[in-house]
Amino acid sequence: MKNKNYVFIARSIDGYIADKNGDIDWLYTVANTENSDCGYEKFINKIDAIIMGRSSFEKVLSFGIDWPYNIPVLVLSNTLKKIPKGYIGKVEIISGTPKEILKTAHTKGYKHLYIDGGKTVQGFLNQDLIDEICITTIPILLGEGIPLFKELPEKIRFEHIKTEVYLNELVQSNYRRKR
Amino acid sequence: MKNKNYVFIARSIDGYIADKNGDIDWLYTVANTENSDCGYEKFINKIDAIIMGRSSFEKVLSFGIDWPYNIPVLVLSNTLKKIPKGYIGKVEIISGTPKEILKTAHTKGYKHLYIDGGKTVQGFLNQDLIDEICITTIPILLGEGIPLFKELPEKIRFEHIKTEVYLNELVQSNYRRKR
Repeated sequence: MKNKNYVFIARSIDGYIADKNGDIDWLYTVANTENSDCGYEKFINKIDAIIMGRSSFEKVLSFGIDWPYNIPVLVLSNTLKKIPKGYIGKVEIISGTPKEILKTAHTKGYKHLYIDGGKTVQGFLNQDLIDEICITTIPILLGEGIPLFKELPEKIRFEHIKTEVYLNELVQSNYRRKR
Repeated sequence: MKNKNYVFIARSIDGYIADKNGDIDWLYTVANTENSDCGYEKFINKIDAIIMGRSSFEKVLSFGIDWPYNIPVLVLSNTLKKIPKGYIGKVEIISGTPKEILKTAHTKGYKHLYIDGGKTVQGFLNQDLIDEICITTIPILLGEGIPLFKELPEKIRFEHIKTEVYLNELVQSNYRRKR
């Protein structure tokens, strides 16, 4: 099976993944009466490892919940030197350019990678290294916050695979890089 | 019938309505084999008048096509003093704050307004004066350009009405202001 890099992320209508305080509570403004996972389980089942920025990693830790992943998580960081207590065997710290990181992941046998976190996604998109994007749009304008996308050196064409609406409110579109 | 302000606009996945040169040729990267109007006719039929920024107006003129509107167009401008030759009776120049502009339009009997153009939409959203938004997402990342949205003083909640996919590629979502 070919190596593939995936993004699976939620954003506001105006393109933010977190509000100006870094909070994501607005993600839950839509009542989840059906207890829907919005396709997450199906998505994560095809992933071999997660590549996550340090900020996202620390955000997950800050939730004070049980570690939510049962696949390897590679945390991108140049500053983090030690894996926090309790996470040894669950996460690995790596650094380098997106291409170097991919090389490391592929060497470990991880072919299907979930690229997560704003800066990390932007870094991989900047090098045109994302194969599939699944974006779930939450029906809110935040007005400011942490943007999903950033400047790119070139336009990147995608093709639409499918769009589904969850809970009558959340619009989830899947795109594949058109090469 | 209640007064209502509508937005009907296309953007790239990363939220731009025009590229860095102000061009919109990327809107047509998807082949329109079905000659679809992507819901435009149905939309425009419920509109009494269009409120358009000067840049958008000049953009339309630059296309060198027949005037595409058969309803009144109010062009927002503080600098334009004279209606260009050939457009008298088709467009009117107005100025003022979004609220003043609405008052003028309502006095003229225009209840359902199409608010068009980046800055104009942003100005009306800033005052929370948009009732419905129809956004069509084109499957491309532009990387830079003229953004659809800008900073807002507050978060604004919308509710999802419906989403349709045109030409298997263009995802069109309709939202209504949740008040």
